[in-house]
Amino acid sequence: MPFANDYKPTHFTLTETSPTLWRVTFDNPPVNVIGPDLMRDLKELLTELENNDTVKVVVFDSANPEFFLAHYDLAADPAIAEALPGTTGYAAWVDILVRLTKLPVVTISAIRGIARGAGSEFVLATDIRFASLEKAVLGQMEVGFTAVAGGGATARLSELVGRGRTFEIMLGGEDFNGELAERYGYVNRAIPDASFETFVDSYATRVSKWDRRVLVDIKSFVNELTLPVEDVFPRQSDAFWAAAARPEFQSINAQLFERGLQQNSHIERNLGAEMGRTFPKPVSES
Amino acid sequence: MPFANDYKPTHFTLTETSPTLWRVTFDNPPVNVIGPDLMRDLKELLTELENNDTVKVVVFDSANPEFFLAHYDLAADPAIAEALPGTTGYAAWVDILVRLTKLPVVTISAIRGIARGAGSEFVLATDIRFASLEKAVLGQMEVGFTAVAGGGATARLSELVGRGRTFEIMLGGEDFNGELAERYGYVNRAIPDASFETFVDSYATRVSKWDRRVLVDIKSFVNELTLPVEDVFPRQSDAFWAAAARPEFQSINAQLFERGLQQNSHIERNLGAEMGRTFPKPVSES
Amino acid sequence: MPFANDYKPTHFTLTETSPTLWRVTFDNPPVNVIGPDLMRDLKELLTELENNDTVKVVVFDSANPEFFLAHYDLAADPAIAEALPGTTGYAAWVDILVRLTKLPVVTISAIRGIARGAGSEFVLATDIRFASLEKAVLGQMEVGFTAVAGGGATARLSELVGRGRTFEIMLGGEDFNGELAERYGYVNRAIPDASFETFVDSYATRVSKWDRRVLVDIKSFVNELTLPVEDVFPRQSDAFWAAAARPEFQSINAQLFERGLQQNSHIERNLGAEMGRTFPKPVSES
Repeated sequence: MPFANDYKPTHFTLTETSPTLWRVTFDNPPVNVIGPDLMRDLKELLTELENNDTVKVVVFDSANPEFFLAHYDLAADPAIAEALPGTTGYAAWVDILVRLTKLPVVTISAIRGIARGAGSEFVLATDIRFASLEKAVLGQMEVGFTAVAGGGATARLSELVGRGRTFEIMLGGEDFNGELAERYGYVNRAIPDASFETFVDSYATRVSKWDRRVLVDIKSFVNELTLPVEDVFPRQSDAFWAAAARPEFQSINAQLFERGLQQNSHIERNLGAEMGRTFPKPVSES
Repeated sequence: MPFANDYKPTHFTLTETSPTLWRVTFDNPPVNVIGPDLMRDLKELLTELENNDTVKVVVFDSANPEFFLAHYDLAADPAIAEALPGTTGYAAWVDILVRLTKLPVVTISAIRGIARGAGSEFVLATDIRFASLEKAVLGQMEVGFTAVAGGGATARLSELVGRGRTFEIMLGGEDFNGELAERYGYVNRAIPDASFETFVDSYATRVSKWDRRVLVDIKSFVNELTLPVEDVFPRQSDAFWAAAARPEFQSINAQLFERGLQQNSHIERNLGAEMGRTFPKPVSES
Repeated sequence: MPFANDYKPTHFTLTETSPTLWRVTFDNPPVNVIGPDLMRDLKELLTELENNDTVKVVVFDSANPEFFLAHYDLAADPAIAEALPGTTGYAAWVDILVRLTKLPVVTISAIRGIARGAGSEFVLATDIRFASLEKAVLGQMEVGFTAVAGGGATARLSELVGRGRTFEIMLGGEDFNGELAERYGYVNRAIPDASFETFVDSYATRVSKWDRRVLVDIKSFVNELTLPVEDVFPRQSDAFWAAAARPEFQSINAQLFERGLQQNSHIERNLGAEMGRTFPKPVSES
């Protein structure tokens, strides 16, 4: 029973590989969007991990071989997620990511399939990112929606890949495959898919056997040295939500939904490229 | 008419690919040194871009296939450039680079040929650097002149390539080809020359179609997170000019001019290597 | 006579390649652990270099082809090293590394063989790290001893390799070969062993001929931009020594010594892997 309060997550599976190593497998068909239900599950997980003093490592992966986490759920009423309780006072998605970075637990993303937008932001907020060389796709396509990324991708990327590559990723909104993501430092390493599971399991198992206290101390020192000044996160979130309220964003969103957004569709699989062909319609047409 | 004030640049060509995408092609034969005339052109360009609210992306390239920007013009009277009007109060070259980083416009260097010294500093102050795999050469050879780089290369490199590689680049003064420059993060990416133009055009065109407001917001957030504390720039500039006034610098400069500096010469093409064979002459010989 | 005070180091050889280029060759058989005698030698070297105004470059290498610096001497009485005079007020190892980063001299690690734990911290505190592609091994295995690294590896790595890779290195405690160390930015470059010496000599010789004043200025500017806030070092050192006093650390240490630690043994050569098979014994067995 991983959750002390008997909470039953509905949008991911939680597997207790051992008392010190947990696996969270996202499972929100058809493409693993990040909606209010998954966010509720994540907030319950965070509360559990903030208080559990046994678990040492959590690996995040996906039940869907094509999608790790597609992106934020653009069809959901944002008020539902914002009404979920949090601990930071920030908007729901920021609350989740800021708490994730500070957990007294090592978090590892095992990225197979697509992680764009908020899905990319989720992996950027875990401690370590391992990617399948052939199957991982990462990107921040918010620029194509006329919005800045709302979950702090700009801040987390700039620490990992430097100013120039942050500009390229955030201003271009393109997809990055595993190989290029490694070259840029967007992920720790891209591992050939045939050995991906073995590699991740081996690393996670190893870490899960160390002394818990030293893992907490290392996280604390690295956090102190590398986390951005936190006030950047609510400001980027506010900028996202301001953009999302504008007609340009809504015009693009409506067009993409007509073409299959949030389905396992051509447009969702190729969203990096498709964004560059989708623009706000003039007000008279919209 | 890109310039609202009808200014006619003489040392670069400005092409309006579209109202939102401009191309600046450096053209100051024989090797594109950065002298007072080119600096005047750049300052006029900055003023235009600071006030133009249509253009979104500017690509910088070179009309000379061997030289992107060779380096600062070491034959010119520095007083001419320093007399040009600026907005920051800094020395002319610092004024240009600091304003370049803050433009409400995306700037991309398309580097074919040599970009050393101030030429390297120019590309480091643009948002994104794409380099020809076979034809790009970057370097900061000021150490060989007995000077620190005056336009902030030390600060901009350390954000991109980290402490160890910044030391190697700045203390060695050697040339870096496109492949190694990418490996170090000195450039975003090195692209095979055969597809270089297509790659750069495709990226720049894509960005030039996004909402202008979001591009400005992204630049603002990345600048806040990654620009160095600004007072380092005037201090590095002062250190450069102090060195340039010393007899050691002038002895090396004189020797290099005798051997063809600022011409399309063996020494200018191989300046990284040649610096290591050129030392100040004893005072009695100079 | 490199040492002005005629000090004779016993655990490294100091070679004056030229008045401006020195070579320090670690030689503390069987595996170059960092014990009180080597630390005394290093402190004398630092004092010499802090006061010598001729030498410009110091290259650090090893007389042992398999070990650059194995790690801290875990058999020595720490009180001996702590009793050595220092200038910073910090614990002995921190005193050495902090002073090393601030020397008015360029420091280059020429890494062949193993540099783990404090050995890795030593190379991280030099300005530039060149590694043999085939023969270098780096790692921070302190986590396996239930301790954080005490000499600031966390801080120095995060500046070089970014947050995600710092977590992977520090939390995993695994070995990194030259190729992967370069990809991560842990070293500047991995050079094929056949050309390693030529490469390092060529770079070091070149730098040793530049104007000394400009080298000092460059170091000063890069230090200002890239050194961490210094108070992190004593706190990490304290955390290491607190862990070293605990029974878990001592149990692992005892087990490893029984199996050949600090000898040229299987376990010392494969310490990254072996750590993952060695855990504290329950108190009743220890």
